[in-house]
Amino acid sequence: MTEDDLLRQMFAAAVDAAAPRICVPAHLPGPPSGRTVVVGAGKAAAAMAAAVEAHWPANRPLSGLVITRYGHGVGPLPRIEVVEASHPVPDAAGEQAAARILQLVQGLTEDDLVLCLISGGGSALLALPAPGITLADKQAINRALLRSGAHIHDMNCVRKHLSAIKGGRLAAAAAPARVVTLVISDVPGDDPSVIASGPTVPDTTTLDDARSVLKRFGIVAPPAVQAHLLDPAAETPKPGDAAFRACETQVIASPQASLEAAAEVARAAGFLPVILGDAIEGEAAEVARVMAGIAKHCAQHAQPAPPPCVLISGGETTVTVRGQGRGGRNAEFLLGLAVALEGHPAIHAIACDTDGIDGTEDNAGALLMPDTLARALTLGLRARDRLGDNDGYGFFKTIGDLVVTGPTLTNVNDFRAILVARPG
Amino acid sequence: MTEDDLLRQMFAAAVDAAAPRICVPAHLPGPPSGRTVVVGAGKAAAAMAAAVEAHWPANRPLSGLVITRYGHGVGPLPRIEVVEASHPVPDAAGEQAAARILQLVQGLTEDDLVLCLISGGGSALLALPAPGITLADKQAINRALLRSGAHIHDMNCVRKHLSAIKGGRLAAAAAPARVVTLVISDVPGDDPSVIASGPTVPDTTTLDDARSVLKRFGIVAPPAVQAHLLDPAAETPKPGDAAFRACETQVIASPQASLEAAAEVARAAGFLPVILGDAIEGEAAEVARVMAGIAKHCAQHAQPAPPPCVLISGGETTVTVRGQGRGGRNAEFLLGLAVALEGHPAIHAIACDTDGIDGTEDNAGALLMPDTLARALTLGLRARDRLGDNDGYGFFKTIGDLVVTGPTLTNVNDFRAILVARPG
Repeated sequence: MTEDDLLRQMFAAAVDAAAPRICVPAHLPGPPSGRTVVVGAGKAAAAMAAAVEAHWPANRPLSGLVITRYGHGVGPLPRIEVVEASHPVPDAAGEQAAARILQLVQGLTEDDLVLCLISGGGSALLALPAPGITLADKQAINRALLRSGAHIHDMNCVRKHLSAIKGGRLAAAAAPARVVTLVISDVPGDDPSVIASGPTVPDTTTLDDARSVLKRFGIVAPPAVQAHLLDPAAETPKPGDAAFRACETQVIASPQASLEAAAEVARAAGFLPVILGDAIEGEAAEVARVMAGIAKHCAQHAQPAPPPCVLISGGETTVTVRGQGRGGRNAEFLLGLAVALEGHPAIHAIACDTDGIDGTEDNAGALLMPDTLARALTLGLRARDRLGDNDGYGFFKTIGDLVVTGPTLTNVNDFRAILVARPG
Repeated sequence: MTEDDLLRQMFAAAVDAAAPRICVPAHLPGPPSGRTVVVGAGKAAAAMAAAVEAHWPANRPLSGLVITRYGHGVGPLPRIEVVEASHPVPDAAGEQAAARILQLVQGLTEDDLVLCLISGGGSALLALPAPGITLADKQAINRALLRSGAHIHDMNCVRKHLSAIKGGRLAAAAAPARVVTLVISDVPGDDPSVIASGPTVPDTTTLDDARSVLKRFGIVAPPAVQAHLLDPAAETPKPGDAAFRACETQVIASPQASLEAAAEVARAAGFLPVILGDAIEGEAAEVARVMAGIAKHCAQHAQPAPPPCVLISGGETTVTVRGQGRGGRNAEFLLGLAVALEGHPAIHAIACDTDGIDGTEDNAGALLMPDTLARALTLGLRARDRLGDNDGYGFFKTIGDLVVTGPTLTNVNDFRAILVARPG
């Protein structure tokens, strides 16, 4: 097996570990004596629902509705309805479907089961404003929060208190039914109260906190929002509330679990895996320079790991676009790595989005080999120039080293692996 | 000992490992039967010469001349002359001193010893154009090379072939005397032919290579330079030449050795040291985001190392200045780290330049503690705003957490250590 094959297999293992067809069946609860209602939202929602249907006993009742992103459906399912809606900016399709989900879980008994399927993107797809508040109100607040530089925890606190379904309200609506939530996490720490703003998870933040956030960042809310945040009935369900007595949540896939799966593939092939982090952030080309420095240090000083080894990391980098080229953050990362490594003879790498789409192109990512720069030069491509034009896609497409998988229907963020071979 | 004390002690150990007063005496050759002439150049040259004088037998002849950067002298020495000159742009003071060094080593015998003391900055300080070429010619070529994006090896190839003293020529002039070169390295890989363009080290590049570099990057050289590069007499001494028969070179201090010294201090205190790299590059605040991701992964997943541990790295980051604030790359790194870590309760850090001067301020660097952000806020300082203004110095000075050592008279680049405490 070549180094490049190994890197492809590691990526495949990372995706498989988060694939609904694999991780959902392993965590399905047994059928209840009563009805089972499947609900949920996220980029993996349709694939998760399909996995439920495929493994649910044909003679036990199953129905429901899940919301996924436009283009992330899997074709009509026999028993669970799949609605597609807009992400990252919510739209009416998502709002109406969220309202129907709230209705579906009402009137259930202790003998019934609500199976809630949550994945990344669920927050936008499950956007149902609290009574008296419009989607436009919520959007205005959201935009102001994004501009303010507020922390994601502060933003979620406000969102939960303006929603009819988030912050544990879906679980409250489903009581006294048993609620089992299966989560594919794409956030650092895998906190279920953060992913999709935790529709079935108790909220530890308060109305008071939400008002403080708006005040702290100088955000003037529309009158309806101000009135809502002063109404004690708008408080979210809290830990210990009766609503959560029959609730349980399982994180069935996560960035870290996928990195671990890839690490096992490396280990089996005789390469020491080193997981540097599941939530590495930063400008893609700069992250690449740092990773290049660490990889070269492995090659030269056998630190932080002796070759043969693989440096593995996850998380989302960012690209500040300055050029006219094409490509997502993984191609940009890999092109930056190519420039920083200057054709290092022992180092290979892969960088791909686990959702199968790097940015807005048709590739998941790309591969870097020791001869990448040289092969590009023979085609008249200078890596440094292409990086200056943010043209990672064009660069790797021209030399034939894109990794193309198509949408994987799951998402545990990016996957990067840098292989340092034993000195020749 | 507190975490912050440990980090300060680690930095002190890194500096001590590269301090001429410690590393020079350990590598001094015994006095020859004849004369000893000390020459050299670099930011540590004066301190290295002082260390030689302090340990040289009083009854054995010792004389010489070394060139250091303005402000890096150590007061007049009894036996070795110290000249200060300009860095990084060469000036006439350096040129004249370099010419005198060439004269000093001529006419020696096999019984004599030339002790050559090389450290970072030596290339600019030891700038003596080959006969027929002016300093202005060399400066013009240098500027064109810097603009071209040529690799440092390509630049050094040209520089060596335009110099009267670099690329082994100093050794050739000193033959048949024994030449011992002691090097304090500030470059990745510690290649003595790279540091100060290797005045006593055989050159493997050729006149042909030098002409190719200029052609490849479309650099049109002044006529005198073109003529020089076509003159066979302008070729540099090569490996195996008789000139190097009595030459030896020792790297007596390096970034890696200093990181290892700091690692030992951490280990003795019960913290697992992890050296990530001795040549980490990148935009300081972005490097900080990556390091924050790795440190948080240690705290959460015990990877790449289980706490209590310290992530150690060296190399030079860069700062793209956009604001009006003050501060060098280490303060910027640490401020970026503060923002990225958001007051993580288990993580402390230090970042300092081993030369004792972070940029152009009076501090070596600064310290980061879990309560840094909170203490700053009570003084009205928002870390994110200060980072946007590139005001690392102002931030850490205001909260009283600068590390001030004064010039250390050595340089093995930056020192960064991020301590992850055992979970409380």
